[in-house]
Amino acid sequence: MQIQIIDQQTVAQHLTMQRTIELMADAYTSLSAGNVESPLRTALVNNKGTVLYKPAYSKSAGIFCAKIVSIFPENAARGLAVTPGIIIVNSAETGMPVAMVEAGYLTSLRTGAATGIATKTFAREDAKTAALFGTGGQSRHQLEALLCAREFETVYVFSRSPENAEQFCKENADLSSSCKFVPNPSRSVLKSCDVIATATTSPTPVFSDDEISDDVFISAIGSLGPNRSEVPDETLLRGSIVVDNRTAALAEAGEITLLNAAGKLPADFSPVEIGEVINGTAEAPKRTPFVFKSIGNAAQDLVCVAELLHYLEDTDDARSINL
Amino acid sequence: MQIQIIDQQTVAQHLTMQRTIELMADAYTSLSAGNVESPLRTALVNNKGTVLYKPAYSKSAGIFCAKIVSIFPENAARGLAVTPGIIIVNSAETGMPVAMVEAGYLTSLRTGAATGIATKTFAREDAKTAALFGTGGQSRHQLEALLCAREFETVYVFSRSPENAEQFCKENADLSSSCKFVPNPSRSVLKSCDVIATATTSPTPVFSDDEISDDVFISAIGSLGPNRSEVPDETLLRGSIVVDNRTAALAEAGEITLLNAAGKLPADFSPVEIGEVINGTAEAPKRTPFVFKSIGNAAQDLVCVAELLHYLEDTDDARSINL
Repeated sequence: MQIQIIDQQTVAQHLTMQRTIELMADAYTSLSAGNVESPLRTALVNNKGTVLYKPAYSKSAGIFCAKIVSIFPENAARGLAVTPGIIIVNSAETGMPVAMVEAGYLTSLRTGAATGIATKTFAREDAKTAALFGTGGQSRHQLEALLCAREFETVYVFSRSPENAEQFCKENADLSSSCKFVPNPSRSVLKSCDVIATATTSPTPVFSDDEISDDVFISAIGSLGPNRSEVPDETLLRGSIVVDNRTAALAEAGEITLLNAAGKLPADFSPVEIGEVINGTAEAPKRTPFVFKSIGNAAQDLVCVAELLHYLEDTDDARSINL
Repeated sequence: MQIQIIDQQTVAQHLTMQRTIELMADAYTSLSAGNVESPLRTALVNNKGTVLYKPAYSKSAGIFCAKIVSIFPENAARGLAVTPGIIIVNSAETGMPVAMVEAGYLTSLRTGAATGIATKTFAREDAKTAALFGTGGQSRHQLEALLCAREFETVYVFSRSPENAEQFCKENADLSSSCKFVPNPSRSVLKSCDVIATATTSPTPVFSDDEISDDVFISAIGSLGPNRSEVPDETLLRGSIVVDNRTAALAEAGEITLLNAAGKLPADFSPVEIGEVINGTAEAPKRTPFVFKSIGNAAQDLVCVAELLHYLEDTDDARSINL
């Protein structure tokens, strides 16, 4: 049994943000068209954390994929990843395990690319100003994706810690020579933002409804779980919500479940999926502010892994082990 | 991220059948005592086969384990394993993936050891004669386990193909110098057998009730699935059944589900678990013939993997990759 080993560096070398954004269009349209199977994840929990098992299958990609990702908050204090993960790939033709992929970098990359494709699809063409909330592990890829999606002149960076925002802007200066990154701006700049990306762990909204512009596009990828929401109720209720996967979002997106629990949504509330908009089977809702809420789906990992395997077929970069 | 690679050869070097039989006693008592969590497996199916994802957690072993095993019947014609598998291990302390283990050999070994511990627990002490049905991938470990459990003088080997039975006896002659392996015997020898082990893929019973002795012990580990049974209804109904895991057996063991579907079992039918007998919380049923039906449980894999990791800590045999 020969298993290809695809480490973080190999993922980074072979998947650009631009390409990953294109792949997310594939992932979302496949998901909405029912061409990717991604059954409910299995969670095993102990007193230190949770391990999630998330399998998926795509006939067109020719692979089975399972992401095994752990969430162990105390790892930070030990200098370990808080959400370490790997992806195991099996051949659709023989069922043989064929690859093991480092999943931490890939998850951050494809979550950035989710904001990228959503911004390309829903933000105004001439968007010039963005705000990024959060400077954690996901944020560099969120910023990179914004820069791929539109020609921003300014990105304002908000963090609970002013030092983190300063540091983040310095560390990511390499991402653009034309766009200015501004840490810790006055809250009043939010009114001028065409796009807001939120990538925080905040249980409560990171801005208020009266701080933002009426036609802003918001990509909310952080604060996972049915009891957490990065976006104010008022914004969600007067605007529109598009999601990555309807079933998962209705069950797990706090932005929706909290409104639902408070009786603020119609009984037949059924948000459009981004894949339906991209493949033309649904129209984008018209009301603004416009919110894209991503829960994250195994389909996103699967398309990236399929692309990596395809690249590596034709290179000498492949590293394998015998088992 | 450093992941230890444990290949087939390393498993074979470090886990003897004798030790694995002891480990099965641990696995089954832990399982019956609720000390191992093994939630329902997830299955992904395509037109060529099935991939099963079977996670488990044991606090006392200090690991999470997930076996990813495929069942692709057409692999045989390609010279590939029909049920290739791997096990991914995560630390209970940090959630980090710590090891990848080849699972084909391990599964066969621990399934042999299941017959071993069951034979030690339920067969007559002075058992001298056994029959083995099936000469496929599982059978060498079934034979080895029988020889570890009791001092057999003769093992009769039955196969649909006489050539396979001949060949199997020759190939496994190394397993004992004192026990005689007899291929393709007359069916009449079954009456003299103290133990019968069945490891076939037969959808229907491999012997009839009137062919066997009244006090035979039968270990049935083959023919998985709710519509297949290696043991005749009459034998099951006049004798006793002990299982590895009650919930799984009631749902998936054809030996039980077929009787149930035919209305032949009492509504409150609830077979004893081998772990309950070993740890003394239940008595072994008294009626013979006595049948042990194994579905196979992730707990069995988990205890073996924990033992392997423990051995390898103290040796130079550890091989790791960086991811």
